Amino acid sequence: MNSPASSHLTFRAIDVIRKKRDGGELSQSEIESLVNAYTRDDIPDYQVAAWLMAVVLRGMTRAETAALTDAMLRSGEVLDLSSLPARKVDKHSTGGVGDKTSLVLAPLAAAAGVTVPMISGRGLGHTGGTLDKLEAIPGFNVNLSVGEFRRVLETCGCCMIGQTAEIAPADRKLYALRDVTGTVESPYLICASIMSKKLAEGIDALVLDVKTGSGAFMKNENDAAFLAELLVETGERMGKQVVALITDMDQPLGMMIGNALEVVEVVDVLRGGGPEDVRALCLELAGWMLYLGGVADTLSDGKKQSEKLIGSGRALDRFRQMVELQGGDARTIDDPKRLPHAQHTMTVASPRDGYIASVQCESIGSACVILGGGRERKEDSVDPAVGIALHKKVGDKVSKGEPIATIHYNSETRATRARQLIEESYRIADSPVCEKRPLIHRVIGRGNGKSGGTH
Amino acid sequence: MNSPASSHLTFRAIDVIRKKRDGGELSQSEIESLVNAYTRDDIPDYQVAAWLMAVVLRGMTRAETAALTDAMLRSGEVLDLSSLPARKVDKHSTGGVGDKTSLVLAPLAAAAGVTVPMISGRGLGHTGGTLDKLEAIPGFNVNLSVGEFRRVLETCGCCMIGQTAEIAPADRKLYALRDVTGTVESPYLICASIMSKKLAEGIDALVLDVKTGSGAFMKNENDAAFLAELLVETGERMGKQVVALITDMDQPLGMMIGNALEVVEVVDVLRGGGPEDVRALCLELAGWMLYLGGVADTLSDGKKQSEKLIGSGRALDRFRQMVELQGGDARTIDDPKRLPHAQHTMTVASPRDGYIASVQCESIGSACVILGGGRERKEDSVDPAVGIALHKKVGDKVSKGEPIATIHYNSETRATRARQLIEESYRIADSPVCEKRPLIHRVIGRGNGKSGGTH
Repeated sequence: MNSPASSHLTFRAIDVIRKKRDGGELSQSEIESLVNAYTRDDIPDYQVAAWLMAVVLRGMTRAETAALTDAMLRSGEVLDLSSLPARKVDKHSTGGVGDKTSLVLAPLAAAAGVTVPMISGRGLGHTGGTLDKLEAIPGFNVNLSVGEFRRVLETCGCCMIGQTAEIAPADRKLYALRDVTGTVESPYLICASIMSKKLAEGIDALVLDVKTGSGAFMKNENDAAFLAELLVETGERMGKQVVALITDMDQPLGMMIGNALEVVEVVDVLRGGGPEDVRALCLELAGWMLYLGGVADTLSDGKKQSEKLIGSGRALDRFRQMVELQGGDARTIDDPKRLPHAQHTMTVASPRDGYIASVQCESIGSACVILGGGRERKEDSVDPAVGIALHKKVGDKVSKGEPIATIHYNSETRATRARQLIEESYRIADSPVCEKRPLIHRVIGRGNGKSGGTH
Repeated sequence: MNSPASSHLTFRAIDVIRKKRDGGELSQSEIESLVNAYTRDDIPDYQVAAWLMAVVLRGMTRAETAALTDAMLRSGEVLDLSSLPARKVDKHSTGGVGDKTSLVLAPLAAAAGVTVPMISGRGLGHTGGTLDKLEAIPGFNVNLSVGEFRRVLETCGCCMIGQTAEIAPADRKLYALRDVTGTVESPYLICASIMSKKLAEGIDALVLDVKTGSGAFMKNENDAAFLAELLVETGERMGKQVVALITDMDQPLGMMIGNALEVVEVVDVLRGGGPEDVRALCLELAGWMLYLGGVADTLSDGKKQSEKLIGSGRALDRFRQMVELQGGDARTIDDPKRLPHAQHTMTVASPRDGYIASVQCESIGSACVILGGGRERKEDSVDPAVGIALHKKVGDKVSKGEPIATIHYNSETRATRARQLIEESYRIADSPVCEKRPLIHRVIGRGNGKSGGTH
């Protein structure tokens, strides 16, 4: 690798664009120069747009992907949490419908003695966002300074905030450009975007929840596995323990979709109840977090500890503590009526007798966006109260006229459009589905930087 | 195709980018909407840059290429020369070193009764440009209005000008963006760029000189043939007669490289002399122009007529007339000393006895740029006087110390650098080359819009 001075002297964006266009492998210095020049506004959007499209169509080697991740990571501040004694472990999901596990996992892993410095995003398109869910709790502040973030972490072991201006500015700039140039859909660019932000949190290990199915970004399991392997290998190249679970997003996770409704479901799970799929996925992910965090000897031990922390109420206590420390109204936890609630509800009834064969997951997500619970565009605001409570999921028996979902809404027009989408997204068959999709499809990586090994 | 109104309503640049990225075929309406929106500054450079890179890597169908050409053509004024009775025929070359045939062909074909409305470009990189050569003639004005262009055409049957602001503005904008985004090198984009400008001239037929070899844009003959076929088919789809000759550019064409020096060689050829390769290529191209222009019954007849028009001095008279009508000092034609000339000359001597095995053509072009006779960047100015007179070409016998080239220069430092490049570009072998490359490699198209046929 050239020294920064010499690489600046010789770097020309056009050469890097041409090299990638022609299928060449870029050097670490070339990638670093490009990312740094773009972050400093030294090269224009149109050159980076052409380069991004060349990356989408030509791909990147593992070394290039790691170099891009590294350059994006080092474009901003990398938190130093080494003064906190516990191991720092985070979880990241590629996004889905009804995916509220982060709100369960952060306090649960913290209650077990792992530090969870979680920097999350907002919902866009049909997928929800952790920050929007947290903000459904009145007063909850996701915009903490780095100093406040550190203080909350020291006090309760977990803290959940939004991306700060200091974290991976190159990613923010690149993501905005990818969004408008058709260059979002590249596993290499997705990997660098995710890992640069997560590694900037100063973590030791990372558990990835890579979704696959009709509600996921990666509809196809092989695509999800490819991304998962890329994420794990890139993290390991950068000295972190990383494990990726390929999990199902062919129907919404849990029964609640919508920000305040999902907080209710989170509290149910932390109380030991809640839908089986949310609970099972949370225990699996928490098991890995505890194992990688060094507080459990095996995955199975991690899951057992997690069950106990839920059973004893200690996980919920930790959630309550985090909500209070971040300015939220913790009374909402014991009294869900204090959460924002929609003015009206409307049920969607089954048109026939039968069994739920499938639920088009992306449509359910879109129905929630239509109600105002998500964003079409980044600048849209979100209504925390609206959403959809599902009553039936794949495999369930239904009778004609039986409610399959309840829409929580504040606008009649929007509710009518959402209802139609929900009706269309349920497929009802005469007989039950033969084979249910598993919740966990595969696990990639062992979290120890080696391809083999047991735990 | 949608009506303009409905296509405006539904057009989103991002959708067109994604479709091309994923290898889809764009509709005429999609391409037209993209080009029109870009020309109007309604979509930003970065979206078009991403689209251009997707086109480079995914390619285009023939229908897409024709649609792009058509949209670029119709982004500006299309000249209507239908009031001129003769058929309008132009020639276009993909560019090379020492390629001065346009200056011979326009007056030659005009003398035969064909109208030649020629809009040309400037030199960039190692290749020369017709406009720079014309401007070596003191007073010659290439910046005529459309009205003046028409008047010169009416008077002498040929006129040679630069691209006006009204002709294919989409091409000017797209070309500037391609130049800085590594998206020049696509046969589809090259085709649309060439054909949109040429068809805007209001021509009936076009003869293309597609160069191949070390001094050409297309080094490889198959690439040249692919582009040639694309150009011919696109022209025919748009109702024009088009023929393409794949011609050699593995060594410079003729003996003179440099603007004023090339004008001297042009006049030599128009007087019936000049280097054999320039003369032979001009007769071949002129033969096609006369055939497509309807003044010759066969290619062979066109070549014979052209020889006669040179022999009788009528072609040179026509050149003199055009120079005068465009404000140039026609005395330079009979008295070349009136052309700009360099202050100094320096000879490059053969380092050994032997035979010229090859001349690295691009290096000779670059040596001329170094002398100041060409441009590295569009904004550079050009010194018309400097250049290189070659004395030996491939196959020639040389003795040690014998001059192989003479450098005409105004700067000692530049001359020294140019000399080194020239020395390095000549390869001298012990025995003569076994097989000389032909001047005309292939002819593509029959100029009649059919793939078969004779002439």
